[in-house]
Amino acid sequence: MSEPTISAPVPRGRPRSERSHRAILEAANEILEERGFVDLTMDEVAQRGGVSKATIYRWWPTKGMLVFEAFTANFLARQPTPDTGSLRGDLLAALRSWIRTVKGTVTGRTLVGLIAEVQRDPDLAELWRERFVTRVRAQHRLIFDRALGRGEILADVDPDVMLDLLFGSAYHRLLQSHLPLTDRFAQAVVDMMVAGVQSGHAATNGNGKKL
Amino acid sequence: MSEPTISAPVPRGRPRSERSHRAILEAANEILEERGFVDLTMDEVAQRGGVSKATIYRWWPTKGMLVFEAFTANFLARQPTPDTGSLRGDLLAALRSWIRTVKGTVTGRTLVGLIAEVQRDPDLAELWRERFVTRVRAQHRLIFDRALGRGEILADVDPDVMLDLLFGSAYHRLLQSHLPLTDRFAQAVVDMMVAGVQSGHAATNGNGKKL
Repeated sequence: MSEPTISAPVPRGRPRSERSHRAILEAANEILEERGFVDLTMDEVAQRGGVSKATIYRWWPTKGMLVFEAFTANFLARQPTPDTGSLRGDLLAALRSWIRTVKGTVTGRTLVGLIAEVQRDPDLAELWRERFVTRVRAQHRLIFDRALGRGEILADVDPDVMLDLLFGSAYHRLLQSHLPLTDRFAQAVVDMMVAGVQSGHAATNGNGKKL
Repeated sequence: MSEPTISAPVPRGRPRSERSHRAILEAANEILEERGFVDLTMDEVAQRGGVSKATIYRWWPTKGMLVFEAFTANFLARQPTPDTGSLRGDLLAALRSWIRTVKGTVTGRTLVGLIAEVQRDPDLAELWRERFVTRVRAQHRLIFDRALGRGEILADVDPDVMLDLLFGSAYHRLLQSHLPLTDRFAQAVVDMMVAGVQSGHAATNGNGKKL
């Protein structure tokens, strides 16, 4: 995602290139807002951003990569991990923020479109894991650090399994659309996890209770 | 998915149509095995099945719908719900069957390809919910009926939330590829759920513990 190396001083080149870069991302976000991922075309981004398609392809080789960058920063900023003082409060706040961000929103449709694209584009999949999944999970991991600090959970609780349960169940409803992402659902998921983890022998990296 | 209505007797038409139908599904399954969902084309299915593309489109308007039918019956047959005598055993058996079916397999890649396609094709999405998600969930719901019958869980445990936790977390790893679908993962998820549900106040439709 870095700009191409400039081998000689080009006084006006760099600012223009930055303007183009920003114009492309803004055009992409506008089109995403209006019509979503599937109907976004590079032609229209070029036209609206006032740049050539070649300019777009210089930075983003595929539509998936362009949308990925337009989407990610915005999405991450909307997933805070406020310190509510309890594991239950923190988990519920995180899941509610996520549901608010994606349920019936353009952001949600873009997220779904990107996940679909990730399944057929190995380069985008790598970017997705490194710059989206890893980052959002690092943000949410704080919740378990704090719970451990408060003595609410044991050190052998696996935060990765916890995050898969919390967000996996929510992504499942988003992607399969079999049931709605209600607040009742969020509470049931969190209640279940808190009860499970506080019983002291779950999510323990498989080192707890044996078969 | 039913055959077109035949208004007059066509003695040799029906058997030939059934042969074509089967030949198309077999050709689709072969191509899926060899190269997977993304690279399957209707042209090749027609060629290998010895039928015209028009014949394929008579039954399946899109590639997604054709692959859906070739995939579904096969997948469902591989998700049994054996009665192991305990909730923990039943959940673990179900999750292990699912992992075995999808991890590193063509079936797993086809599942992923179909889920991606479902996000951009509303007709396929409807079929997916009605004939795949609903059916596989109905099979797995037996686990909670049996647990209730044995007195292992309370009547207010919500099987839908339980299934979202169990399979949502697993689909999450399959689709985001951030971590592997290990047996240790399966055990941690199941341990967590069993501990949570047996503490008696989780997954209760939100009617349990209040905020």
